[in-house]
Amino acid sequence: MAKLTGKVLIAQGGGPTAVINQSLVGAVLESRKFPEVTRVYGAMYGVKGIVNEDFLDLSQETTHNLEQVGNCPSSALLSTRDKPDDAYCREIFRVCQAHDVRYFFYIGGNDSSDTVKIVNDNAEAAGYDMRCIHIPKTIDNDLVVNDHTPGYGSAARFVAQAFMGINLDNRALPGVFIGVVMGRNAGFLTAAASLGKKYPDDGPHFVYVPERPFSEEQFLGDVKAAVDRFGRCVVAVSEGVVDKEGKPVMVSLTGGKDKDAHGNVQLSGTGALGDMLGELVKNKLKIKRVRSDTLGYLQRSYLGVVSDVDQHEAREVGEKAAQFAIWHDVDGSITIQRTGNYSVDYKIVRLEEIAAKTRTMPA
Amino acid sequence: MAKLTGKVLIAQGGGPTAVINQSLVGAVLESRKFPEVTRVYGAMYGVKGIVNEDFLDLSQETTHNLEQVGNCPSSALLSTRDKPDDAYCREIFRVCQAHDVRYFFYIGGNDSSDTVKIVNDNAEAAGYDMRCIHIPKTIDNDLVVNDHTPGYGSAARFVAQAFMGINLDNRALPGVFIGVVMGRNAGFLTAAASLGKKYPDDGPHFVYVPERPFSEEQFLGDVKAAVDRFGRCVVAVSEGVVDKEGKPVMVSLTGGKDKDAHGNVQLSGTGALGDMLGELVKNKLKIKRVRSDTLGYLQRSYLGVVSDVDQHEAREVGEKAAQFAIWHDVDGSITIQRTGNYSVDYKIVRLEEIAAKTRTMPA
Repeated sequence: MAKLTGKVLIAQGGGPTAVINQSLVGAVLESRKFPEVTRVYGAMYGVKGIVNEDFLDLSQETTHNLEQVGNCPSSALLSTRDKPDDAYCREIFRVCQAHDVRYFFYIGGNDSSDTVKIVNDNAEAAGYDMRCIHIPKTIDNDLVVNDHTPGYGSAARFVAQAFMGINLDNRALPGVFIGVVMGRNAGFLTAAASLGKKYPDDGPHFVYVPERPFSEEQFLGDVKAAVDRFGRCVVAVSEGVVDKEGKPVMVSLTGGKDKDAHGNVQLSGTGALGDMLGELVKNKLKIKRVRSDTLGYLQRSYLGVVSDVDQHEAREVGEKAAQFAIWHDVDGSITIQRTGNYSVDYKIVRLEEIAAKTRTMPA
Repeated sequence: MAKLTGKVLIAQGGGPTAVINQSLVGAVLESRKFPEVTRVYGAMYGVKGIVNEDFLDLSQETTHNLEQVGNCPSSALLSTRDKPDDAYCREIFRVCQAHDVRYFFYIGGNDSSDTVKIVNDNAEAAGYDMRCIHIPKTIDNDLVVNDHTPGYGSAARFVAQAFMGINLDNRALPGVFIGVVMGRNAGFLTAAASLGKKYPDDGPHFVYVPERPFSEEQFLGDVKAAVDRFGRCVVAVSEGVVDKEGKPVMVSLTGGKDKDAHGNVQLSGTGALGDMLGELVKNKLKIKRVRSDTLGYLQRSYLGVVSDVDQHEAREVGEKAAQFAIWHDVDGSITIQRTGNYSVDYKIVRLEEIAAKTRTMPA
């Protein structure tokens, strides 16, 4: 089979994770093994660095240096929230053609997989032969087809350990604790708050996810029931909880002023949701000691509680991207599929199966 | 030298830390070695459990079980914010006398050391022979005489690692990040945000502590300078920052409604300070991507990033309490004094040297 000879271009998009650099390093090191690969470029700031021709030549980086990068949280090539439209994609192209890029690997979530798909569609339409691979990452665990996604395991571990400590803290100084967890559309990460529960009276006593409409009455009733029973209450709430009209509770609160290029409302980086729920409990239930913490950016960037399995799976999806593109000459999205307890296999699926789709938690 | 024979009573007060149970276990195991000790009681909910005679007989706990408790964050005997007045102390007494308690160990911060002092004064006034020892703990590191306090090391490590990750996250998706750190009067914990800085452009770029008056103008000027220079800015702010009149910025914000029995205003468990500073940056500097996270209770209860040195020092101050009280027949507060780089020694000082005093950071 004739193989494409040319450059590899890698970029990272969307929110960072604790293991996203493992995927980068996996893809770079694996790509460098192939004689078809003339150079491995990293684009700075995601797709923005492509159109600006802001490249780093990763062919020259030492393996040791790359390994150190792999162990760091957050996106080493930096990131972007830009969502390329067709004009943007034509520009990505012209740059790829000019640099003889034949393999484009983009590490990101469902927004990024959509970007890869648009670039790939444009490449095909223009008759330019280029393999485009989406490498999954997201702490939200919301990519369809995948059993789970790289980045989720470490974030889930952070959240689980956080609530284990918070449960003990709340036990020592009883009251109501409201912990707000990241998760725009899917409650997987918030559900992880329960992973460390050991005894029947351990918190979190209630978990609120975006998949179920949030009602103030039910919330207050739940809190009251736990306080009556245990003398205290710990709840975990997704930042993306919605009311029964499907409107995010945060949007009604902030007026939804801050949106990124994807039309996403700012849910993180503010304590507003937790504070509002805390005030509600104080005022309606007349409970004195009410605390709310928003776990915030630590969930995706905390250094030091990375999951080993997550780390090596992130590495492997990066390696697989290079293998599928260069060996097998196909486009697509790398997925993690579970084959046993516990074992996984990596399969490539067509981009349209992943792009811009959101997986939510099954009931 | 005649030694007092009777029971040991141990309690934990104030906010939990990640290593406070090491001090408990150290004091219990060491006490059980002395033939003068007839029983080791743990009071539930701090001093509240003493007046309620809510005791746990720790003489019967297995060593293995105690060791497991030692490794858990938060106060295993639960805690209280009660501050005993003289009437409360006379009540503590009657209970101690009734149970033949001759050794009272109270693990806590400066509020708790004050409690120990009042109990001890009352014991002396009543002619009741009882040794009272304050065992230090506080993530704020604000006990006078001490080089540092058990609980601080682990909290500082949590904060340092948090800001290392946040710095990388902010580097990938540039903007302004405001991290609010615990610390009512002392900025030691907030200062720890800088411990992981490696390169000149690493955040936090500015650290605001309660020891220096906080001015909005200076804050905005600092943020602008960092954004102009680095294209981004990470700041660490103590929850207890005060304006030039000495009024906590949080008090002017919330009206200072929630106070505990010590007259302390609620500073933690709300994102209000961070959100207010974030709004300020958005509105005054017209910067779009502004995020604030309040590190919250994770700082004192997070499971999994405990400092080894902190853990064994916490254990040792507990052991020393038993040794000073039972062997040496003295009252006082155990202190950590530095003797080298890195070595420490434990000395007992008179309670009035510690009680209700706050150490702040030297300039």
